[in-house]
Amino acid sequence: MTLPFTIEAQAGPARHARIHTAHGDVETPAFMPVGTAGTVKAVPQDILEDLGAQVILGNTYHLYLRPGHELVRKLGGLHKFMSWDRALLTDSGGFQVFSLSELRKVKEEGVSFRSHLDGTSHLFTPERSMEIQIALGADIVMAFDECTEHPAERERARASMEMTLRWAKRSKDYFEAHKHEVPWKGRVIGRSGDRGIGKSEESVPAQPRAAAVRSSISPELPTTPALFGIVQGGMYADLRRESAERTVELDFPGYAIGGLSVGESRAKTMDMIAAVLEILPKDKPRYVMGVGYPEEIVQYAAMGVDMMDCVLPTRAARHGLLFTSEGRINIKNARYAQDQGPADPKCSCRVCSRYTRAYLRHLFVSAEPLAGVLNTVHNLAFYLDTMRSVRHAITLGDLSGILSGSVSFT
Amino acid sequence: MTLPFTIEAQAGPARHARIHTAHGDVETPAFMPVGTAGTVKAVPQDILEDLGAQVILGNTYHLYLRPGHELVRKLGGLHKFMSWDRALLTDSGGFQVFSLSELRKVKEEGVSFRSHLDGTSHLFTPERSMEIQIALGADIVMAFDECTEHPAERERARASMEMTLRWAKRSKDYFEAHKHEVPWKGRVIGRSGDRGIGKSEESVPAQPRAAAVRSSISPELPTTPALFGIVQGGMYADLRRESAERTVELDFPGYAIGGLSVGESRAKTMDMIAAVLEILPKDKPRYVMGVGYPEEIVQYAAMGVDMMDCVLPTRAARHGLLFTSEGRINIKNARYAQDQGPADPKCSCRVCSRYTRAYLRHLFVSAEPLAGVLNTVHNLAFYLDTMRSVRHAITLGDLSGILSGSVSFT
Repeated sequence: MTLPFTIEAQAGPARHARIHTAHGDVETPAFMPVGTAGTVKAVPQDILEDLGAQVILGNTYHLYLRPGHELVRKLGGLHKFMSWDRALLTDSGGFQVFSLSELRKVKEEGVSFRSHLDGTSHLFTPERSMEIQIALGADIVMAFDECTEHPAERERARASMEMTLRWAKRSKDYFEAHKHEVPWKGRVIGRSGDRGIGKSEESVPAQPRAAAVRSSISPELPTTPALFGIVQGGMYADLRRESAERTVELDFPGYAIGGLSVGESRAKTMDMIAAVLEILPKDKPRYVMGVGYPEEIVQYAAMGVDMMDCVLPTRAARHGLLFTSEGRINIKNARYAQDQGPADPKCSCRVCSRYTRAYLRHLFVSAEPLAGVLNTVHNLAFYLDTMRSVRHAITLGDLSGILSGSVSFT
Repeated sequence: MTLPFTIEAQAGPARHARIHTAHGDVETPAFMPVGTAGTVKAVPQDILEDLGAQVILGNTYHLYLRPGHELVRKLGGLHKFMSWDRALLTDSGGFQVFSLSELRKVKEEGVSFRSHLDGTSHLFTPERSMEIQIALGADIVMAFDECTEHPAERERARASMEMTLRWAKRSKDYFEAHKHEVPWKGRVIGRSGDRGIGKSEESVPAQPRAAAVRSSISPELPTTPALFGIVQGGMYADLRRESAERTVELDFPGYAIGGLSVGESRAKTMDMIAAVLEILPKDKPRYVMGVGYPEEIVQYAAMGVDMMDCVLPTRAARHGLLFTSEGRINIKNARYAQDQGPADPKCSCRVCSRYTRAYLRHLFVSAEPLAGVLNTVHNLAFYLDTMRSVRHAITLGDLSGILSGSVSFT
């Protein structure tokens, strides 16, 4: 099995499952913090572990440009480079180069673009994206796709979807031929507390990894990364269904829904997700890329989505926006200057159990670097705790409380 | 006793002692991290605790301007505001307004200056400095002094020294009349892990604080802050001695040597310190302000200095300069791009035990906020471990190893 996936409980279409990776289990529904350049911005790795993050996302575009995938490969892969021995997923780079708009050009071969760092010219193809992601050593690799712009005419959306399908085939062909080149293949990685810095690989004890988060019934673990296909099709439900059917025909161990959260209404996003979920196989993980607000990720999990990622909790934190059980608060607001309560009275994270809103406001208005650290830690705790509550509710077989607003997110 | 001071071991003029504050013991010789605006830049308070910091310094000038001492007083003082229940020392604000050069004017009454934040006009007098520091609730308050510029003619240095003595008397008079107004007076503060956020004071258990770092023979703890006098006198040893004698006549529970590290040679700094240490009473703590490099603080501790503070480890960290047992390294240097060793192979801090130089370099050249966090944590660990080694050497009665370079700092 390329990527064992064990469903442990269901509540309607929602599932609580485990993805068994070579770097530990990922409990789903999972929110994946974004660690763009080999770091979840402002957060040390041990705090990410304490928060319970079981998988984080790396951005292929950024890591390719700096420090470079060949350097990362040479140093043992991204897990070792950033000292993160839990699971890693990398995106394909497609969305990032798509976002460069003025600097990129899409052809059948791939996407040529200029670096936002130094203006140098580069070409991403499906093959190149696979090569980079394998060099980085992600546990889950994403097919190279074209994120269709919004709005797009039907014919444009179809053409883009067709290219994504051709690129998915090319991604898979290259990936299957090269997946054994992953830098951690055959490498036994030490457990937390034994980082192996300055030690030879031989001196690291051959223990099973991340045993604490692994189910008592452990399937055989993968020895290579797994490649996910990506469904596109713009905002046309029939194109989305066709994209899903034809991507499933290519047979991947997991499927993502891309090209959403690009400016469409929330109702439209949900329609597209619902249309695709009908098609995707129920025994494999299903990942909606780039979403969303807390109430959205709860909703999508209830619909049967297993994985999500978004820069929102981390990026908003650096702008002073905190997610709480009482709604979103802008910590720089003067009303918090003398507020001795925690950011979120229902939160038990290390920030809420120690610091007041008054202090967090002071740090933010003073542009202190600790503001970004503490705000990010709280927001990630809120997102990860939200997903933990969702998993618990699924285990109890009842998501109505969390969906009806007895847990409030807005 | 205003500030109990217990000498536990001596090695020549060097002493290993404990300052018993209302917020825990401070083992000396101590290096005090600088927490300018109620935060040691980029470092969460729990990490400072883990590093073993027993006292940190707050800057009166910065806290007065933002968030304002009245706000801090209203919220229970700086300990509570920043959630730091170990010892705090505040400077007088004199050095900071002295540093404003173009924006300040010194008169007998005090120093008028304009805020670097918004240009508003303010006046610091000895009385005002005491009022602010008492409102902040420091355990150790510094007399308001004039930091004599360098170079200064003899008569100018004398006049400045005389004014500092008059200001010391005014500082003491105001302080003695108002020291009971400290916000933590009579307040029983919870221990680590019981931060009291959102709890009434009554619900906090009345336990002795920081018992872990307190000597088994605990003297009665102070219920008010302690005021330290400051010796000035420019670079004239006889003026320094006279300043020390006349400051000691005013009778403070501790003494600082100010106006050093302002551009003079290291030999001159040592001469001035040596001249003053001959005069200062041996049964009270002696504090050299604003120093220094690791090899300097070891040297001064060996001469009998008990306390030091400096922005160097924290500020240098944010510029990528790391202090190590192998000397100073600039982490952005390309030679570290593939270096899989830790920042300092002899360091066991949480940064050196987990991250490589290659990763730290990547974070720094990518301007990632985690760079500032990790670099600062390592540099503080290096400074605090250095002082721990000095204390250990004093206990063993032999500082020769640490002074001769079997521990190398440059």
